[in-house]
Amino acid sequence: MVIKNKTILIKTGAKSLNDITSRIKDEVRLSKINEGNCTLFIKHTSASLIIQENADPAVQEDLNNWMDRLVPENDPIFTHVQEGPDDMPAHIKSALTLTSVSIPFVDGSLGLGTWQAVYLWEHRAEMPGVRLDRKLLVHVSG
Amino acid sequence: MVIKNKTILIKTGAKSLNDITSRIKDEVRLSKINEGNCTLFIKHTSASLIIQENADPAVQEDLNNWMDRLVPENDPIFTHVQEGPDDMPAHIKSALTLTSVSIPFVDGSLGLGTWQAVYLWEHRAEMPGVRLDRKLLVHVSG
Amino acid sequence: MVIKNKTILIKTGAKSLNDITSRIKDEVRLSKINEGNCTLFIKHTSASLIIQENADPAVQEDLNNWMDRLVPENDPIFTHVQEGPDDMPAHIKSALTLTSVSIPFVDGSLGLGTWQAVYLWEHRAEMPGVRLDRKLLVHVSG
Repeated sequence: MVIKNKTILIKTGAKSLNDITSRIKDEVRLSKINEGNCTLFIKHTSASLIIQENADPAVQEDLNNWMDRLVPENDPIFTHVQEGPDDMPAHIKSALTLTSVSIPFVDGSLGLGTWQAVYLWEHRAEMPGVRLDRKLLVHVSG
Repeated sequence: MVIKNKTILIKTGAKSLNDITSRIKDEVRLSKINEGNCTLFIKHTSASLIIQENADPAVQEDLNNWMDRLVPENDPIFTHVQEGPDDMPAHIKSALTLTSVSIPFVDGSLGLGTWQAVYLWEHRAEMPGVRLDRKLLVHVSG
Repeated sequence: MVIKNKTILIKTGAKSLNDITSRIKDEVRLSKINEGNCTLFIKHTSASLIIQENADPAVQEDLNNWMDRLVPENDPIFTHVQEGPDDMPAHIKSALTLTSVSIPFVDGSLGLGTWQAVYLWEHRAEMPGVRLDRKLLVHVSG
């Protein structure tokens, strides 16, 4: 078995879905492994992973707006408030989505469906002092 | 290491949990691999995977009804409406559940608990022109 | 490839996040595998896995309280009630979080971010006759 582990940096926008599909495909190609499994693991708890439709950008906006309404800022139930009003909602949104996802590949080609893209979902708002560079561990084996 | 990748087709009913456990067990058995990991990856963004209780069918109905109430159709927040009123809710329900799941196996036997079954959760409603044949990638390695 | 599969028991408290990070690190160390992937699979449908912030305990309490409010007991939509008022909410909370998670490791060290811990989220309330010993399958390969 061959294993390739790499941590890549993803620059994200505030509260947005960031398409990282081409970055993942690059890593699978660079691994020179023909058939195997690609596991993504995000090293954060206020950003997460999802696989969603890449055709209509409105899907990504609707997802973001719906989630923002489900988990609003300044909810009086929150006691963890010292890192800003967007931090606890970001943790909850992360808990409701994915920290890791595994995508098998065959003939060097990721097994994504026709309309699927991989997104790093940034849940934090842009604030002074908050860096939005996210670390993603890409594990390719086969 | 031996790797077996196969895409299988699952015929689903509208807005329902479809038990695919025996299909997955078949693939592990056919792989002839004794010990390893079985990764399932659904190639769609309006249907998803979950592992849930298989004993009382009411659990599956309650799950479905609860989720349908959490993410109702015709929510004015949705702008992606051209594929029907059930499409954007289906994307959100998929985002809240699983796109991939990994189940280790030992002695050819999947590590599911006594009451666990694997379900393909169809989030779309039955509509003319919408096919409910879903593609599932089954990756068995060991 | 070397594979180590082990089922470990986790004693949980009622409706709480239980930090299992050190248990997982132990299994990776015991496997003596230097580089690979660690897949966790919980063999239950009323408890689940998440990876969340380990710094401020208030994050875990807020997560628990928020989820409890989203999925309250005694919801009239539930028909599966014979196992107690907390059982169907526990299934839903499990469906919204993780049944399996894969964490790559390098040089024997799990790829968790600085503030990440692995939690077994117990969704059941303490009740006479309900055992809160949970089985977790730990699969280490590399």
